[in-house]
Amino acid sequence: MILKEQISFLEKNLSFWNELSNDEKNEIIQYSFITKYNKGAKIYGSNKDCLGLILIEEGRLRVFIDSEDGKEITLYRLLKYDTCILSASCMMKNINFEINIEAEVDTNVIVVPTKYFNQLRETNSGAKSFSFELVTARFSEVMWVFEQYVFGSAAKRLACFLSEQAFLQNSDVLVLTHEFIANDIGTAREVITRLLKHFANDNIVSLSRGSIKIEDRKALQKYCS
Amino acid sequence: MILKEQISFLEKNLSFWNELSNDEKNEIIQYSFITKYNKGAKIYGSNKDCLGLILIEEGRLRVFIDSEDGKEITLYRLLKYDTCILSASCMMKNINFEINIEAEVDTNVIVVPTKYFNQLRETNSGAKSFSFELVTARFSEVMWVFEQYVFGSAAKRLACFLSEQAFLQNSDVLVLTHEFIANDIGTAREVITRLLKHFANDNIVSLSRGSIKIEDRKALQKYCS
Repeated sequence: MILKEQISFLEKNLSFWNELSNDEKNEIIQYSFITKYNKGAKIYGSNKDCLGLILIEEGRLRVFIDSEDGKEITLYRLLKYDTCILSASCMMKNINFEINIEAEVDTNVIVVPTKYFNQLRETNSGAKSFSFELVTARFSEVMWVFEQYVFGSAAKRLACFLSEQAFLQNSDVLVLTHEFIANDIGTAREVITRLLKHFANDNIVSLSRGSIKIEDRKALQKYCS
Repeated sequence: MILKEQISFLEKNLSFWNELSNDEKNEIIQYSFITKYNKGAKIYGSNKDCLGLILIEEGRLRVFIDSEDGKEITLYRLLKYDTCILSASCMMKNINFEINIEAEVDTNVIVVPTKYFNQLRETNSGAKSFSFELVTARFSEVMWVFEQYVFGSAAKRLACFLSEQAFLQNSDVLVLTHEFIANDIGTAREVITRLLKHFANDNIVSLSRGSIKIEDRKALQKYCS
């Protein structure tokens, strides 16, 4: 059972809330619960219970895969207002890969338990569309990471370019258009925009209108090397 | 417009066919069309039109990503009776990665055009569930390839093991349980089953009750090296 504050959070952040019947809304309210995770807590993985749909009220989660020998690859990060559906993937028919989720900072989440959410997905058209869109969005993010990992040249070139510019201009704040960078490193403007967003998501840069600020020189350098 | 033979193919292979109204069925029949691709034909990619949901009546398609410098990675293959949804991904809101599809042999497909299929996904609950399941299945396959690519040890060990056994037994037909192999190379039985399925899908081995036949020694060796 969740309280008034969380109900209003769900109303605002679950895109299909208005498509639910009153009964369905009441059931979500009744079945959902809030959980607090401390920084570093592993909240999902091979030895953990199937959790459910997670909404992040506050904090940050990292979703990653790991190898037998402990190597990790971050797939994406989830911030405040984001929703995680792969935390309910253990009960999805065709998903047979394992992911891990950990709290990168102290994190508060609202959990809609898998069993109830999966049932809702079957009966409510809005919840069904929502799930489809969320899964395709995550699929896209993973493809991006995959492509960077195996092809990876544009991200590398961008990182090198930004490092070089910061050195040349003796400043971490670079006033450059995406168009300009794209021309310089020989790719499309859209690619630069997408790459910068990913760098921003990883706290390597921060973006504001017309400028790029390098927040983590070391991480940027790592991309470039 | 498709003909009787194709209609019966759709009836059998579109899991949501029975959930469609007669009007919807008639619309699919009216809007869909058949296409024949010659071996090697590129049927989907960055410079091609958005196609639609594809059902493979006969033949084989390869779905892959490529880098700027022409490197390719196969994500999965589609065989007779398989359905491709990423060929309609150009009109899906959250999908922003590009895939390529080519015919590996002469291939006949039935195409349900994107515009009509997307509309059907909005209005028909069965088509919506079907899309979700198909996208999650492809997501899983891609994750498998990704994990093999970046971690890749179990597949390599399995390939080496099979090559070695074929050499030792002087036969391409190996009578071995998945359990036995799993114990030998130090992983779980489920992992072996999954890997063998992928090898079979890539025509590297063929599987029958209780035995594994090596069909492509060269490809197996490549995994092992």
